Amino acid sequence: MADIHPTALVSPQAVLGKDVQIGPFCILHEGVVLGDRVRIDAYCELGVPTPLADGSPLIIGDDAWVRSHSVFYTASRFGEKLVTGHRVTVREHTVAGKNFQIGSLADIQGDCTIGDYVRFQSQVFVGKKTTIGNFVWALPHVVFTNDPTPPSHVLDGPTIEDYAVLAAMAVILPGVRVGRHALVAAHACVTRDVAPFTAVAGVPATVLGPTRAIHRRDMPGASAYPWPAHFRRGYPEEICAQWDTEFAGQGAA
Amino acid sequence: MADIHPTALVSPQAVLGKDVQIGPFCILHEGVVLGDRVRIDAYCELGVPTPLADGSPLIIGDDAWVRSHSVFYTASRFGEKLVTGHRVTVREHTVAGKNFQIGSLADIQGDCTIGDYVRFQSQVFVGKKTTIGNFVWALPHVVFTNDPTPPSHVLDGPTIEDYAVLAAMAVILPGVRVGRHALVAAHACVTRDVAPFTAVAGVPATVLGPTRAIHRRDMPGASAYPWPAHFRRGYPEEICAQWDTEFAGQGAA
Amino acid sequence: MADIHPTALVSPQAVLGKDVQIGPFCILHEGVVLGDRVRIDAYCELGVPTPLADGSPLIIGDDAWVRSHSVFYTASRFGEKLVTGHRVTVREHTVAGKNFQIGSLADIQGDCTIGDYVRFQSQVFVGKKTTIGNFVWALPHVVFTNDPTPPSHVLDGPTIEDYAVLAAMAVILPGVRVGRHALVAAHACVTRDVAPFTAVAGVPATVLGPTRAIHRRDMPGASAYPWPAHFRRGYPEEICAQWDTEFAGQGAA
Repeated sequence: MADIHPTALVSPQAVLGKDVQIGPFCILHEGVVLGDRVRIDAYCELGVPTPLADGSPLIIGDDAWVRSHSVFYTASRFGEKLVTGHRVTVREHTVAGKNFQIGSLADIQGDCTIGDYVRFQSQVFVGKKTTIGNFVWALPHVVFTNDPTPPSHVLDGPTIEDYAVLAAMAVILPGVRVGRHALVAAHACVTRDVAPFTAVAGVPATVLGPTRAIHRRDMPGASAYPWPAHFRRGYPEEICAQWDTEFAGQGAA
Repeated sequence: MADIHPTALVSPQAVLGKDVQIGPFCILHEGVVLGDRVRIDAYCELGVPTPLADGSPLIIGDDAWVRSHSVFYTASRFGEKLVTGHRVTVREHTVAGKNFQIGSLADIQGDCTIGDYVRFQSQVFVGKKTTIGNFVWALPHVVFTNDPTPPSHVLDGPTIEDYAVLAAMAVILPGVRVGRHALVAAHACVTRDVAPFTAVAGVPATVLGPTRAIHRRDMPGASAYPWPAHFRRGYPEEICAQWDTEFAGQGAA
Repeated sequence: MADIHPTALVSPQAVLGKDVQIGPFCILHEGVVLGDRVRIDAYCELGVPTPLADGSPLIIGDDAWVRSHSVFYTASRFGEKLVTGHRVTVREHTVAGKNFQIGSLADIQGDCTIGDYVRFQSQVFVGKKTTIGNFVWALPHVVFTNDPTPPSHVLDGPTIEDYAVLAAMAVILPGVRVGRHALVAAHACVTRDVAPFTAVAGVPATVLGPTRAIHRRDMPGASAYPWPAHFRRGYPEEICAQWDTEFAGQGAA
């Protein structure tokens, strides 16, 4: 049984899974398909229609939690366990994997591809045609751009490979590829490709060195990267077991 | 006939043009004048009263579209065809020309002068007393400041001339003038005036060279600037015809 | 008598002081305690429950004004005369002093300690465990970070001492201490401690010199810092009288 607040406006065409919760003052348009146990908090608008969509609905998988004041357009698709902050915006034609976490005020412009277990923190901006792998972190105020000579008709979104970490207020320029397990420092402007397992910093960003040379503060002498060797909060057991093997012996003092 | 959602709270003193649409959960205060065919989406609050206003209303011209969760104060004025993203804030005493496009989460502090066909993308911050010409672009997270020695009583907003482009996360310092057709690169901090047709980058920003030396990605050998030589999306035919003459032969390979 | 808009949803367990105003479409959960004459504008949600809280309520002191679309969790506490912009988010376990002003779209992640008369402007992001003194200014898009090697279990928020000023888009890295009366220039990335009365700029930030060498624009030859020698807007008389003594003879031409 869905638990729909009496002030919410829910289209009879919206498709709701089992035990869905819809908060006060929400608006669900017709192009919405919610999985089981999805929770939508107050003032959210889901399934905003747009001529840029092709008639396909917004699909949000099981066990999602969308916090208040968020806006999702039609024609995007999220795997299970989506979690958002407040006032998130997601436009059409974005496909994201499971357990995507989107921080407050993040703005995803659409036409993006996003892997599993990705973490965006607050006020991240994602231009169209951005491609993001699995286990990527984007910290507050990170911006992904896509037009090399604005304004133009070129849409050349960046590509962020698995496990890469982009620290606060980093800007990723169009067409740039950030390699697996790379680290972009806070306030960096990344103008060219970053090699895997490499740290960059500055405006424009230059190479600091291999990420393994960066040490943990809570275990002196141990490498902070690759981070899955020591950081596990919020990941399921089967992923952690896999990481135990894959990153064995790394990150130790 | 206005189409007002039954949940909207509309002051009987608000002045609505023909065929206006007011979405669910909107609030229109008394100091609001909307042109014909204006569309206001859900959760917007228009005409927020403030002692800083002089009793003059918020005026939004014909054919505007204000997306959800936006907030406009009294005593600002917009020409026809305003288009906003979600959660835009505009305070009092801002005057903007026609076809102004404001991205999601933009925050315009008031007392600003903005020309025709200006484009702000997401999360742009505009301090008081900023002056912006026609056809200017400000990309995501651009910030216009106004206090040279904060905090002080000096309000010295920057001036951005026609056709200038400010790329993502650029900061424009107080009193700076960015010349016609200039380009400010992503993540630049502009501390002094930028000459017309000049590109700058860095923190603090230094001159890269003339903008005409920057080439298009979709037509090698052709200049990307001045951009109206090749980029026309969203501008009316009469403007494009004028640009055909004004920028003839520029931007070709 | 409280003035509660008929569309507002107010828990009977919420504790409201005298002459409180609650705007349209607000939601007040049970864990809310509001002082006298508090004004909450439209679309605000107060007392959002979270398992991270310990059962203690959100407490907002007398004479506060929370502007529309803001979200406050339980288990935070604000002194008298809080003023917010629109769409502010404050999570649990933040304690702030009196007359705190928070700009629109600011996001305070919780577990922060904030002094009296602090001013945050728009889109400021405050990571957990940030410590901020009295009379501090953070201008638009300032970001306080807390994880030296993201992602990790270390939460090492920065400390900002009394009267420090952080200009637009400055990033303060984890564990950094910004000294009393220091100035961080716009777009700086502060990677190490800043001495009191010192100005820094750049990415990474380097020392510009003593703040007293920076002159006012409205009184040539006079120092702009320490700013309380000449800037008084919005501070109560008893504070200004104290500053007359403490900063006598400083800031004069």
